[in-house]
Amino acid sequence: MPHIDLDKNLPGMRSLMAFSPETASPMGELANLLLRSNEGLSMADRELIGTYVSYLNDCFYCQQSHGAIAVCYLDGDTELVDQVKKNYTNADIPDKLKALLTIAGSVQKGGKFVTAEQVEAAKALGATDRDIHDTVLIAAAFCMFNRYVDGLASNTPTDLSSYPLRAKQIAEMGYGNHIFKEKQPVAENAAV
Amino acid sequence: MPHIDLDKNLPGMRSLMAFSPETASPMGELANLLLRSNEGLSMADRELIGTYVSYLNDCFYCQQSHGAIAVCYLDGDTELVDQVKKNYTNADIPDKLKALLTIAGSVQKGGKFVTAEQVEAAKALGATDRDIHDTVLIAAAFCMFNRYVDGLASNTPTDLSSYPLRAKQIAEMGYGNHIFKEKQPVAENAAV
Repeated sequence: MPHIDLDKNLPGMRSLMAFSPETASPMGELANLLLRSNEGLSMADRELIGTYVSYLNDCFYCQQSHGAIAVCYLDGDTELVDQVKKNYTNADIPDKLKALLTIAGSVQKGGKFVTAEQVEAAKALGATDRDIHDTVLIAAAFCMFNRYVDGLASNTPTDLSSYPLRAKQIAEMGYGNHIFKEKQPVAENAAV
Repeated sequence: MPHIDLDKNLPGMRSLMAFSPETASPMGELANLLLRSNEGLSMADRELIGTYVSYLNDCFYCQQSHGAIAVCYLDGDTELVDQVKKNYTNADIPDKLKALLTIAGSVQKGGKFVTAEQVEAAKALGATDRDIHDTVLIAAAFCMFNRYVDGLASNTPTDLSSYPLRAKQIAEMGYGNHIFKEKQPVAENAAV
């Protein structure tokens, strides 16, 4: 049960955004800027980083919802998303992305866990300053989103079939405020 | 030395905001909404929560800069800010704020560390749903800010005398984009 009085018809982040639409606005804008860009990192790379950090933070809602969005960008390859969460070093992804996931994993522990060696390794594999910046900020932002969702014990749909539907909508339309502020009721177990 | 090419004339968060003005905009807006309000929690309460979480995350830059802003709201009481960081249960602050700092400390560890008992204790001392929400989101947001600042190894002024000057400016004017986007050069050891 949520720690505060949240709309029972809305899941996870959406119930929080409805409770506090003022803060929802810049948080939605930040998510859009960080996750809906193919400049440097692809949208798939960005969602994989967010999903991996959510997995490390043990945030069921965020790892399911963002994992489902990553799957949309990866032509339905759910197995790859699972591999990235559980053992990215053996996943079928470029070495550059593996090096960035190492940095993201350090950020999850705390900013000072990122080492110069980890950054140099990523740069040697082609990561630009912008790639490093975006990786660190995506990982840091998910440390916020995950804590927001779980720190208020928001409603987490356990029916996994509900996540892909909502993911498709975000993959097509982005994280605008239209996502967070919409008013129509949804099924209790609807995701994202 | 920073992990990416940041402006050497700007400290900590400001150098990051200059590197990425697009993301600086919603992050500044979020900081303003969470920290520049006296609705429910006072601005002093909000900065104390942010300073305490930054202390737990071992982020020197954020605990110094936000601690200095809290001091501005507390009529120069630096000792109280130190007490809150090191042992808030014995600090001269209301019990309600102590209960909220307990919740903030749990959020710093991870969202699931917040317990129903902690929330009930805060509510019994007068905390509203809005107070609980704001405490969790402030703590979560500092888990992002701290990781952003330290994860990119941004320049941290060690001259403690530089923080109060900048803090006074923010205490008077807020965290608008005018803070993050201003162009004039500043001394290398200037804070915030």
